Amino acid sequence: MSKPRPLSGFPELLPAQRSVEVEVVSTLARTFELHGFAGIETRAVEPMDQLLRKGDTSKEVYVLRRLQEDDGGRDSGIGLHFDLTVPFARYVLENSGKLEFPFRRYQIQKVWRGERPQDGRFREFTQADIDIVGAGELPFHHDVEITRVMVEALKGLSFLPGFRLQVNNRKLLQGFYAGLGVSDVDEVMRLVDKLDKLPEQAVRDLLVTEHQLLDAERADKVLALARICTPDDSFAEQVRALGVEHPLLEEGIGELGALMRGCADLVTDSVRLEADLKIARGLDYYTGTVFETRLDGYESLGSICSGGRYDALAADGRTTYPGVGISLGVSRVLVPLLNKGLLTADRSVPSAVLVALVDEESRSASDAVATALRRSGVPCEVAATASKFGKQIRYAERRGIPWVWFPGEPEHTVKDIRTGDQHTADPNTWTPPAEDLRPQVRVVGPSTHTDTARNPKETTS
Amino acid sequence: MSKPRPLSGFPELLPAQRSVEVEVVSTLARTFELHGFAGIETRAVEPMDQLLRKGDTSKEVYVLRRLQEDDGGRDSGIGLHFDLTVPFARYVLENSGKLEFPFRRYQIQKVWRGERPQDGRFREFTQADIDIVGAGELPFHHDVEITRVMVEALKGLSFLPGFRLQVNNRKLLQGFYAGLGVSDVDEVMRLVDKLDKLPEQAVRDLLVTEHQLLDAERADKVLALARICTPDDSFAEQVRALGVEHPLLEEGIGELGALMRGCADLVTDSVRLEADLKIARGLDYYTGTVFETRLDGYESLGSICSGGRYDALAADGRTTYPGVGISLGVSRVLVPLLNKGLLTADRSVPSAVLVALVDEESRSASDAVATALRRSGVPCEVAATASKFGKQIRYAERRGIPWVWFPGEPEHTVKDIRTGDQHTADPNTWTPPAEDLRPQVRVVGPSTHTDTARNPKETTS
Repeated sequence: MSKPRPLSGFPELLPAQRSVEVEVVSTLARTFELHGFAGIETRAVEPMDQLLRKGDTSKEVYVLRRLQEDDGGRDSGIGLHFDLTVPFARYVLENSGKLEFPFRRYQIQKVWRGERPQDGRFREFTQADIDIVGAGELPFHHDVEITRVMVEALKGLSFLPGFRLQVNNRKLLQGFYAGLGVSDVDEVMRLVDKLDKLPEQAVRDLLVTEHQLLDAERADKVLALARICTPDDSFAEQVRALGVEHPLLEEGIGELGALMRGCADLVTDSVRLEADLKIARGLDYYTGTVFETRLDGYESLGSICSGGRYDALAADGRTTYPGVGISLGVSRVLVPLLNKGLLTADRSVPSAVLVALVDEESRSASDAVATALRRSGVPCEVAATASKFGKQIRYAERRGIPWVWFPGEPEHTVKDIRTGDQHTADPNTWTPPAEDLRPQVRVVGPSTHTDTARNPKETTS
Repeated sequence: MSKPRPLSGFPELLPAQRSVEVEVVSTLARTFELHGFAGIETRAVEPMDQLLRKGDTSKEVYVLRRLQEDDGGRDSGIGLHFDLTVPFARYVLENSGKLEFPFRRYQIQKVWRGERPQDGRFREFTQADIDIVGAGELPFHHDVEITRVMVEALKGLSFLPGFRLQVNNRKLLQGFYAGLGVSDVDEVMRLVDKLDKLPEQAVRDLLVTEHQLLDAERADKVLALARICTPDDSFAEQVRALGVEHPLLEEGIGELGALMRGCADLVTDSVRLEADLKIARGLDYYTGTVFETRLDGYESLGSICSGGRYDALAADGRTTYPGVGISLGVSRVLVPLLNKGLLTADRSVPSAVLVALVDEESRSASDAVATALRRSGVPCEVAATASKFGKQIRYAERRGIPWVWFPGEPEHTVKDIRTGDQHTADPNTWTPPAEDLRPQVRVVGPSTHTDTARNPKETTS
């Protein structure tokens, strides 16, 4: 077999990189659980009719076929899920009688999209979703809760660059457009969403000339609204200064203001919250709060963490299940940082200790030391061969194992090969410093959001 | 949307069941890491030519097709992996220059097979694999190591029934058959492997009459060998008493004896190790040690944990990579126990505490208590609505949350709703007993391998 080559769009990690990913996933899970979110997993597949309910995503779906299917190779009628929201909505309906509402769940799983691979966009990637879903109703305070939980989760990833969580409210947009007398509110919202990628004049041309949705005066108001961006609830007076009135607009202003005030205490120099009124989330079916998140220096990745409120995440004819949720693109954030070598771990194996081997005959003595260390919770391995100690030390060095244990009778010696320090030790009682017990994530180069001084230039990719 | 129905062969878990699975997976990972095994994940897909290298498994593969592919719906040339060995062999070759050998890795991931769903057999299921792979060579002591690690991992799952690890060695079988003058060794081994499902006389007929591979005298010897099963290295004298001689037979006897002696200290009443000379692992390409594992009372599940030694796990023309590994069917063990209700968790949410809500206006006071508890590592949630305290307590009860916190000024009260005991407490210092911090796995009914007295009747499904 010749050397296999990577498959474009299906990133894989080396062991040290994978230990960074494991650390990220377990930190996220830990934060979600502290807030009472139950972890679930759904199967990788859904019936095609479920996956195709939102017509415009159909091009991204991988369809499955059993190679030797009796009926001669027809599709199985199932495909790989392309997000975690469709499966979660189905899971809620399927198990509604067995779940307690409001139901808080997190879900960290791979998803698949057949789209063209590019920077931060993959065909297989990991998402981390949190949602709160109610049966019949879901009070607005859960919008504040979900925002707080995701901000705390991102803050927990101390090796990430700083970030900006941008929040808006669809009621505010829809109410403003309705107050202006706009007829096709959804289409205007879809075009305003392009301000992310197009200059304002181009979006204005789309609204006024190409699609003829607005006259020049209304377009000015719509674009003036989209320009409003405040770090607190002061957006409200800027919106009111535009002179548009509508009950839904007031409701949206109220909710967005409550969210900004409810999260104000989480803001730091590098963790910013913005009421950004150009955020619309395009074609997605949100009905209130909407979120996007930009990573400092990695704006080209687009939003790494998005979501919002659905009045009907799911419905079964009898009950409607409103939900609010947010989804973090774990691979989208992590894989570029790992591939650029900006994040790594300090060793490629879990072992904190290599137990040296004097000769093959005394392997059981080395094994006994390893067993004693493991009993104290110290990950370790015994040298594969009884080569010279210098060679065994280099074996540890190549893997980043910090300690080498030399079994002796009656005295054992343990050596920190980073410093060269060594001392006698008892395998039944010795443990390394706590930070040596697990591989440590190392940030190489640019600063992170836990630094007080940031240098934006360094974090630009 | 009408109520969706489960997809046969794609099991999903309710939140409390999923927390049992998470506990199992993290216990396994912890054991593997204590022994220096690095966790990796491979992509879910492999090129079809890789997946079809073993011709006989082709019927199980799910092929992928992009729904809107430019070329009009042809296959993508990729399919879902059906085990973790094929992807691991490919990963080793692809990254050989970046890995350190011997390379110990564990991999806990989902795999997919398009086979007919039945008891303990699924179309999507989780496997936990450990392998040690060398570049060029891999000393035999790693066979002992991998056996010990998997036995310790299974022992760590204290809520499992007892089990029996059956070990054999292909060299012993092949040497014995060669010493007997058998011509088609592989075919005899494949038929002997059927002793698992067929009575001895039926296998004898296959060997002697139907396939005419052996005369009656040789068939007697082959079946006498297969009948040997000892809890220690005493199999060796029973084999030698059959009077067959061959250097490969001696090598196999030596290796199997070393393995039995090397693992003897791990044996308990309910964790048994057997040199079982009928174990052959059929068509798999093992070249030395082979393993199977039976769960007491769940023999109908077949082997829940299998593996062995490959002289060539992978090869790239310049280097051959021998490996020894073993694969645990996590779903195969766990899903039947969960579905029968024999295993569960004591709550459906991670929250150890429900912080009660006096009225909606004082939500921030309850939030502050929750924040203080989380700072101490206590998972908690604030009541969704300010209903009567009795109703809030029932909210906790339905989810299995053991503690309810009543915010007060100046004194807070915390109540153990299982016992009714309550006392005043400071949110900045109080923590529940350690066992309340995480959902606990509960064994319902039959005994487990940590019980000293076992009742086999109770564990029969």
